[in-house]
Amino acid sequence: MKAELVSVGTELLLGEIVDTNAEYMSQRLAEIGVDVHFRHTVGDNLARIVSVLELALSRSDAVLICGGLGPTQDDLTRESVAQVTGCALVSDPDAETHLREFFARRGFTPTSNNLKQATVPEGGRLLDNTCGTAPGVLVEHAGKVIFAVPGPPPEMREMMQRQVLPILCERFGEQLRPVFSRVLRMSDIGESTLVAQIDDIISGQTDPTVAPYAKPGEVTLRLATKAATEAEAVARFDAMEATLRERVGRFIYGVDDETMEVAAGNALRMRRATVAVAESCTGGLVASRITDVSGASDYMLGGVVAYANEIKQRLLGVPGEVLAEHGAVSEPTARAMAVGVRELYGADYGVATTGIAGPTGGTEEKPVGLVYVAVADADGVVCNEMNWPGTREQFKQRVSQTALNMLRKRVLGIEVARL
Amino acid sequence: MKAELVSVGTELLLGEIVDTNAEYMSQRLAEIGVDVHFRHTVGDNLARIVSVLELALSRSDAVLICGGLGPTQDDLTRESVAQVTGCALVSDPDAETHLREFFARRGFTPTSNNLKQATVPEGGRLLDNTCGTAPGVLVEHAGKVIFAVPGPPPEMREMMQRQVLPILCERFGEQLRPVFSRVLRMSDIGESTLVAQIDDIISGQTDPTVAPYAKPGEVTLRLATKAATEAEAVARFDAMEATLRERVGRFIYGVDDETMEVAAGNALRMRRATVAVAESCTGGLVASRITDVSGASDYMLGGVVAYANEIKQRLLGVPGEVLAEHGAVSEPTARAMAVGVRELYGADYGVATTGIAGPTGGTEEKPVGLVYVAVADADGVVCNEMNWPGTREQFKQRVSQTALNMLRKRVLGIEVARL
Repeated sequence: MKAELVSVGTELLLGEIVDTNAEYMSQRLAEIGVDVHFRHTVGDNLARIVSVLELALSRSDAVLICGGLGPTQDDLTRESVAQVTGCALVSDPDAETHLREFFARRGFTPTSNNLKQATVPEGGRLLDNTCGTAPGVLVEHAGKVIFAVPGPPPEMREMMQRQVLPILCERFGEQLRPVFSRVLRMSDIGESTLVAQIDDIISGQTDPTVAPYAKPGEVTLRLATKAATEAEAVARFDAMEATLRERVGRFIYGVDDETMEVAAGNALRMRRATVAVAESCTGGLVASRITDVSGASDYMLGGVVAYANEIKQRLLGVPGEVLAEHGAVSEPTARAMAVGVRELYGADYGVATTGIAGPTGGTEEKPVGLVYVAVADADGVVCNEMNWPGTREQFKQRVSQTALNMLRKRVLGIEVARL
Repeated sequence: MKAELVSVGTELLLGEIVDTNAEYMSQRLAEIGVDVHFRHTVGDNLARIVSVLELALSRSDAVLICGGLGPTQDDLTRESVAQVTGCALVSDPDAETHLREFFARRGFTPTSNNLKQATVPEGGRLLDNTCGTAPGVLVEHAGKVIFAVPGPPPEMREMMQRQVLPILCERFGEQLRPVFSRVLRMSDIGESTLVAQIDDIISGQTDPTVAPYAKPGEVTLRLATKAATEAEAVARFDAMEATLRERVGRFIYGVDDETMEVAAGNALRMRRATVAVAESCTGGLVASRITDVSGASDYMLGGVVAYANEIKQRLLGVPGEVLAEHGAVSEPTARAMAVGVRELYGADYGVATTGIAGPTGGTEEKPVGLVYVAVADADGVVCNEMNWPGTREQFKQRVSQTALNMLRKRVLGIEVARL
């Protein structure tokens, strides 16, 4: 059973926003076994939306449109569906009452534009929107199904989860074959080197498929298969994972949702150990990532963001002479920060970052991108120096990834080599 | 001059990754005045990629393909371009030498799959990739131009910036009319209420266009116009912005790239004031956002992530009896944290967050989503209680946005009303 997705909005074509809705909808459809072979993005233009819908309807069983259901003149999804199905737009009395009440509560009278949101192509029906004003639309036409869902992500998600997916499952149940996947997450290896080492496996892949993908600070291998049952998929994944682990197992740090912050947290929990973080250049990102994990309070005591040198001295106990002699961005300072935050919080592990995020602040001797990351425990301190020029955001992301990876390896007793 | 974008990769259609490349390419093309009316996403399938390319070439002057240039069997972009232009794939000797050297340095011999990356449709040419192994492809065919750029974002960006955009400008210079835009960022108002208040302006828009967009914790209004010169665009924006400010000016906190962390930072810099942050539920995100801004060290002294109660007491001076009587998630604790971090760092402003991010840890009295945000200064403390159930990520994002907004308003002397 095939579906196509259509994202509507000129702001998407102008690159004003990232289309995370398409990602979410694709994921959910893959999970229930709907094949999505094409996705389209089109602006707020009636003729162009209609041309995309005609193409999609000509080759797929269902079309899901996201966006263009708002109250303004350039919201044209309803009109496009009406045109492509040859049905007039008619008002839905319940929806109109609901809209009038919504505006009355805010002290406004809806305009004719606002009331447009209560219309539906004749023969179709509206889908309740429990989080906003724009109802969704469902129209069956010539054996095909057309859904339109609102663009604001919480409204889209709610409507997908509670209405669109159940309707698809009920209608196409017999034809759906879910895609299962497993993601192996790797650190300390680049994509090219990884591909060179397992080139024969990737080339010879049939089922499951094996696809490498590079992300900031890590590379993933995604295994995917279509299977009747989860057990069947798991058996195939286990066999392929075993083959891959023989070759590159030492680089695999996590599976599926086990991100680096989860992997580091799991290591700490397993050892019943605690951590505290001292951050200069990452400015709180390492702590924020650790606490992105539910239950992090089991091992995370907290941290200090020490932007000012005075704080590095007074709170973290970095000696004034170290700062004077080596500077804030130096290996001795990173080591002292890690030791200091460990003692301040009474933690088993102390993690520290200090570097030059840029774009300003670099010198010939200490260029933008230079960074020191240290991890302290009862046995001493390890510290790595790296140089990662890039945007401020990329820099912070990569440094936080390295800090979490060094922490994870130290906790697990894996040698923390210079990267 | 019209272009279409084609993102190639089954992982995109499965929702495994967000297509930030399409966003970046769209932005850059809009900036130089290329009209993008359609964007496509297609999987690693030769026939489907070819069908998309044929459609795009039938109605646009240029087609930009991203992804599918890698060394594996499911990288089919080169083959698709060859097929759609009717040209054979031939090896480029320089590119092949470059590839062989790349692998030799890593101690590997390239396979025939790897060497595929050195091929180009006959008559076309390869574009240098300074950050990776996959060169880009440029083919002119029947008066149209086809570009293919690699999928890894740093490689794609570099190639767009240094090769694709300059070639487009040189070839289509006369036909390009850049789109200019201005974004007004608003807080303390929802999208529906905003639209109700300026419905006539949105409905009556011609040039510039005015489009509202809701993001987590804020709403933006995007003004856009096509103009021959920037001065012309600025004049149109200034007039429209003045009209909008008359109606809803008190909600506008920033323009264009002036995000909430930038706006709060600008307010602090203007008042020559400093800030320190005490975070429980946001776990370092507020500090991280403040330090996302280059030059933040002018006003950011740092912060304490106080996950453990013992740290709230010992470092921030929250009285034990306050924690015992009201709990860690309470207004008195938030106030004491803000006062405590302000004193600890000797800062002009102290900001504090404490709440229940979930999904676990909620009770009937203190449910998941309950949060207190406080700002302390020499005149006292303000504190707001909010309740935002949602995912952990949404919760942290909204709370950090509120904390930065309360800080900004307090610094600027705007009343910090309960939200």
